[in-house]
Amino acid sequence: MLRSSIKKCIFRAINSTAAMYISETTVRVRYAETDKMGYVYYGNYTQYYEVGRVEAMRALGTSYKEMEDNGVMLPVYTCSLKYMKPALYDDLLLIKTIIKELPTLKITFDYEIYNEKNELLNTGNTTLVFINMETNKPCRAPESFIERIKNYF
Amino acid sequence: MLRSSIKKCIFRAINSTAAMYISETTVRVRYAETDKMGYVYYGNYTQYYEVGRVEAMRALGTSYKEMEDNGVMLPVYTCSLKYMKPALYDDLLLIKTIIKELPTLKITFDYEIYNEKNELLNTGNTTLVFINMETNKPCRAPESFIERIKNYF
Amino acid sequence: MLRSSIKKCIFRAINSTAAMYISETTVRVRYAETDKMGYVYYGNYTQYYEVGRVEAMRALGTSYKEMEDNGVMLPVYTCSLKYMKPALYDDLLLIKTIIKELPTLKITFDYEIYNEKNELLNTGNTTLVFINMETNKPCRAPESFIERIKNYF
Amino acid sequence: MLRSSIKKCIFRAINSTAAMYISETTVRVRYAETDKMGYVYYGNYTQYYEVGRVEAMRALGTSYKEMEDNGVMLPVYTCSLKYMKPALYDDLLLIKTIIKELPTLKITFDYEIYNEKNELLNTGNTTLVFINMETNKPCRAPESFIERIKNYF
Repeated sequence: MLRSSIKKCIFRAINSTAAMYISETTVRVRYAETDKMGYVYYGNYTQYYEVGRVEAMRALGTSYKEMEDNGVMLPVYTCSLKYMKPALYDDLLLIKTIIKELPTLKITFDYEIYNEKNELLNTGNTTLVFINMETNKPCRAPESFIERIKNYF
Repeated sequence: MLRSSIKKCIFRAINSTAAMYISETTVRVRYAETDKMGYVYYGNYTQYYEVGRVEAMRALGTSYKEMEDNGVMLPVYTCSLKYMKPALYDDLLLIKTIIKELPTLKITFDYEIYNEKNELLNTGNTTLVFINMETNKPCRAPESFIERIKNYF
Repeated sequence: MLRSSIKKCIFRAINSTAAMYISETTVRVRYAETDKMGYVYYGNYTQYYEVGRVEAMRALGTSYKEMEDNGVMLPVYTCSLKYMKPALYDDLLLIKTIIKELPTLKITFDYEIYNEKNELLNTGNTTLVFINMETNKPCRAPESFIERIKNYF
Repeated sequence: MLRSSIKKCIFRAINSTAAMYISETTVRVRYAETDKMGYVYYGNYTQYYEVGRVEAMRALGTSYKEMEDNGVMLPVYTCSLKYMKPALYDDLLLIKTIIKELPTLKITFDYEIYNEKNELLNTGNTTLVFINMETNKPCRAPESFIERIKNYF
């Protein structure tokens, strides 16, 4: 019994580091997204985050559009961004999107953005809430989405 | 009879130069709207045009929001822009919005954008179509809107 | 001497709660800023924050543009946003911008955004760093700026 | 003489259809780019045009960034857009960019935007002027760029 407990603990420990879903996508910086400083405007990283999480869902075999078509939307509740180095015009950015916890009534995405020299430019996260579009009330993550993601946890 | 025709002609001639509705509003250039050239990004003038026409409608005592709430929307059909001088960060721009013809199934707005030195930076126009949001088909300009604007023509 | 110390302490204590600089400005939600959810897109609040802090500086009798013209720029280092209720198309938003601490090498702005019904829609903050544009290195807040703001602290 | 005229005419006719440079690229519609109508905001097509012309230059083996790095920039002088059908959220758009004439002091790009059902959603064009960034005056298209494109004409 003790042994089984220990095993469980070990399993959990391993699991806690390993269990997450990671997805990568790229985005090319548009001229429109730069500002007179010559950098990407600080607010435009939110669009890169959006691209990151939308492609993370597509890589799971579903899509955010499909979720909305099925009556569930995901407005953003909190967003946090940290700017280490500026992204520049025409940079081909790598967006790493990470889901560290199984979604419940909400889902948190972490983001890391790298340039082609593999420099970490920006990190951040967003928490979004599942909303039933008919009732306009919070709801649980759709079963079909949980099905696709739970294997990673 | 001839006389009346002449009168009519004269009236029309005068009318054709005089009859229009003009509205003015200002907008402050945001950092977000500049690009690495240090100018306002060419695409962002479309937002200034939007501000121009929306405030033109508000100055008539109605609003575009009200029109949508009443089931009529105004998607843009054509847009044309000419860039003479760049608008710069923090410029307080004057947007002159002109309606030269009574709206029918569509409405055309002309725009002129000036900086604080009264330099003409940009001219353009947009044609929008009235769409009944229920049928998703073109419709005539709402009567209440025509009522407000026809005095200028 | 003791007495003077106590006085100083009391003064500081009072000061620490009272001492802040608050500025208010308004912004009208543009159609461009909404998304298909019918709300203001979550990333566009960063532009409202920008308007808030820029007008906060202007209300002090200076401007961010002037600071850049004098060789100091203010890139954003961190940004955090919390969305309580959605801002809607054509809402006239009140942006309250608060500086709670005298700027040093960096400056933090807090923001509160209200709609016309005085509902608190969004709160957030940004920390920006003063950068000498010649050396591209961090620097202290310009003396002229400190002069204008220190009376509030 | 007549014969030569006819030949010339035939040559021109062939030439007029054949001599052009066409490039294609795709762009996925972001949530940020939609508006409350559920369509892509009319101003955001300007960003798709930018992507179109930038990728057209890259496909030629050069890039707009490289041109700027070499001291020549391309501000937009005129832009014209026509909206036939709305682009929708998550649409994978095909942007066809066409250069119909060898650039001189200016360059004109034509655009056609299609959705995945191959429906033509939008057409437009932009004329941009070559500016020497040192003198801030118009200049001829860089020789290296002409070299790459002239084979298509």
